[in-house]
Amino acid sequence: MKKLSTIASLAALLATAPLSAQEAEKQSFPSPNEIVDKAAAAEWLAIAPTHLLVMNLAPDAQGKERRVIIQLMPGWFNRGHLGNIRKLARAHWWDGTSINRVQDNYVVQWGDAGGKKPLPGNLVTVAEKAYEYEDDDLQIGRKALEEERPVTKVLRRDPYAPYTDFEEGWPFAADLKNHIWPVHCYGAVGVGRGYSPNTGSGAELYTVIGHAPRHLDRNIAVVGRIIEGIEHLSSLPRGTGPLGFYEKAEQRVTIKSIRLASELAEADQPRFEYLDTRGKSFAKYAGARANRRDPFFVKPAGGADICNIPVPVRRVKGEE
Amino acid sequence: MKKLSTIASLAALLATAPLSAQEAEKQSFPSPNEIVDKAAAAEWLAIAPTHLLVMNLAPDAQGKERRVIIQLMPGWFNRGHLGNIRKLARAHWWDGTSINRVQDNYVVQWGDAGGKKPLPGNLVTVAEKAYEYEDDDLQIGRKALEEERPVTKVLRRDPYAPYTDFEEGWPFAADLKNHIWPVHCYGAVGVGRGYSPNTGSGAELYTVIGHAPRHLDRNIAVVGRIIEGIEHLSSLPRGTGPLGFYEKAEQRVTIKSIRLASELAEADQPRFEYLDTRGKSFAKYAGARANRRDPFFVKPAGGADICNIPVPVRRVKGEE
Repeated sequence: MKKLSTIASLAALLATAPLSAQEAEKQSFPSPNEIVDKAAAAEWLAIAPTHLLVMNLAPDAQGKERRVIIQLMPGWFNRGHLGNIRKLARAHWWDGTSINRVQDNYVVQWGDAGGKKPLPGNLVTVAEKAYEYEDDDLQIGRKALEEERPVTKVLRRDPYAPYTDFEEGWPFAADLKNHIWPVHCYGAVGVGRGYSPNTGSGAELYTVIGHAPRHLDRNIAVVGRIIEGIEHLSSLPRGTGPLGFYEKAEQRVTIKSIRLASELAEADQPRFEYLDTRGKSFAKYAGARANRRDPFFVKPAGGADICNIPVPVRRVKGEE
Repeated sequence: MKKLSTIASLAALLATAPLSAQEAEKQSFPSPNEIVDKAAAAEWLAIAPTHLLVMNLAPDAQGKERRVIIQLMPGWFNRGHLGNIRKLARAHWWDGTSINRVQDNYVVQWGDAGGKKPLPGNLVTVAEKAYEYEDDDLQIGRKALEEERPVTKVLRRDPYAPYTDFEEGWPFAADLKNHIWPVHCYGAVGVGRGYSPNTGSGAELYTVIGHAPRHLDRNIAVVGRIIEGIEHLSSLPRGTGPLGFYEKAEQRVTIKSIRLASELAEADQPRFEYLDTRGKSFAKYAGARANRRDPFFVKPAGGADICNIPVPVRRVKGEE
C-alpha cells in the first residue's frame, strides 16, 4: 500500500502529460478526500468557540506538547450534561486530574482518579430520558423515509436502529417513535457513570478508541467528539487493571488544563469548521465512502455504516 | 464506570448473602463475558500450531518484551496467500524488517521498509478472484435465510453485505450468488498491495486498529487476526508521513522474528482455543452482545454488527 503515495506523487509531477487510463478513471471517480477538498467555501460551517474544549496534557517523554480539541454537540441535545461540562471547564475543575483508563479497542477515560475531588455546587442532575430526544422538529426517521436523499440510501441497513442520519454535522440514530439519539463512533466523547439510573455529572469523560461500541447508544450520554489530537489518547499504553484502568499513579498522564475556547484570549482560540451535512459535497462524499471506485478499489461495497462516514472537520485556513 | 469493578468485587465477597434485586437481575441476564466463562469445555476448539504466527518485536523503551500472536484463517480460504505467508515465515524473511506505518483509526503495517529485500522464489501469484470464495458447500447466505439461527437474526441488517455469519470461528459476509468473503474487523490481518490487479505477495501485512474498514472487504485479502498482544501495535506512536508512514528510520520498531508456532520447540508453542461459533454458548453470547441487559444497561440495542461480536479466543488453561 506504500506504493499508493509514490504513485500519487508521480501523478502530481506528470500533471501536464497526457492522462493515463488510470488517471482518467481517477478523475471520473474521485476519492472521498478529493471530493471534500473540492467542496465550495460556503459548504464549510464555522464551529462556535463555545462548542470547543481545549485539553492540554502534560508533555510526552520527549517534552512535546499534547493538545486535544473536543467539539461539543449542538445545544438542543444533552443540554444538562453540556451545561455541566461548561461549568466544570469554567471552574478549571479538570486541571490537575488525569487520564485514568485506556482499554484497547474500547475507550480512554479521564477525570479525578481518586473520585473524591468536590464538584462545583451548581451542576444539574440529568434524567435517563435525556439519552433520547423527542424529535418533533427534526423527524429524522420520517424524513429518511420520505426524502430518499442519497445519504439516507447509503445508510439504509443499520444494525442498531431503524434509521441513521446526520443533523447539524452529527451522526444520529432514530426509531419509529420519533426519538433520536447520538451514536458512539470512533472519537465520540461521552459521560462516564455508575449503575443506572445514575447518568453521571459530566466530570468523568471518555472517548472511543476502537470499533464503534454502538451498544452504548442510549445507555450513556454522548456529548461531543474529538476533532484534533486523538492520537495523544489512542496511542497511550493500555492499562493493565480491570477495564483497562491504570494500576499505578505514575502511569496516569496529567491533564494540565481543559478550557472552553471561548474563555481563551481571541488570538489563542482555535478555529474549526465542518462540512455541511445537508450539502451537495457531503452527499457525494458519503456516496463515495459507500462505493469506493477510485483506482485502488476492485469492488465497491454498496453501503456504509454511519461511523464509517466521519464528518469532515478542518482548521479554518491560516490556522496552525 | 470505574464503580463497575468495585461493585463486581463486592458482589463476589457477598456471594453467600441473600441476593439483592440487582444481583438477581444479573443472574437472569448475564453479561457476554459471563456467558463465555460458563461455556462447556467441549465448546472450546483447539487452534492448530500451523495456524499461529508468533511475532517478536524489539523490546520497548523499558526493555519489556513485545510479542504478538496472529491466528491464520482456515486453509480452504485464501490458500495462495496463506501458503506464501507460511513460506515467508519458514524462510525467516521478516526477521530484521519493521513496523513502517501506524495510521490512527485505520491500520498498522509491517514488512520491508525499503521494499527491496528479495522475496523467496517459491511464492505464488494470487488472482483477484481469490478475494471471494465460491460457497457451494457452506452456503452461508442460503443457510442464513433457511435456518433462522439466533446469531443470524442478530446479524440481519449488515450495511455492507446481504448476509454475515461465522464459519469455523471466522466472521464472513455473503451475497446472493453464493460468494463469501472474510470481513475487516478490529485486529484483522490483511495483505498490503499496490494498485489493482496486484494482490500482494503476503510479505507486506497490516492489521486494523480502528473502526472496521469494511469497504476494504473483497478489495484486499484478509488472512488472519491478532489474538494476543495487539496493544503492542495499536499503542505505537502514529506516523506523521502520508498514510501514517514513519518518516524517520529510528521511528520504526524492528521485528526480531516471525515464526509459525509449529516451527518452535514444543515447549515454546503457544496454545490457543476459540469458542465454537456453531455452539449454544456462542449463540447466547452473540444474543447478549446485541441485547445487553446486564445491570449497567438501560436500553438493549436489538442488534449488533458482526465486528461487534468478536469471537472469544483464549489461551489453553495452564498457559502463561
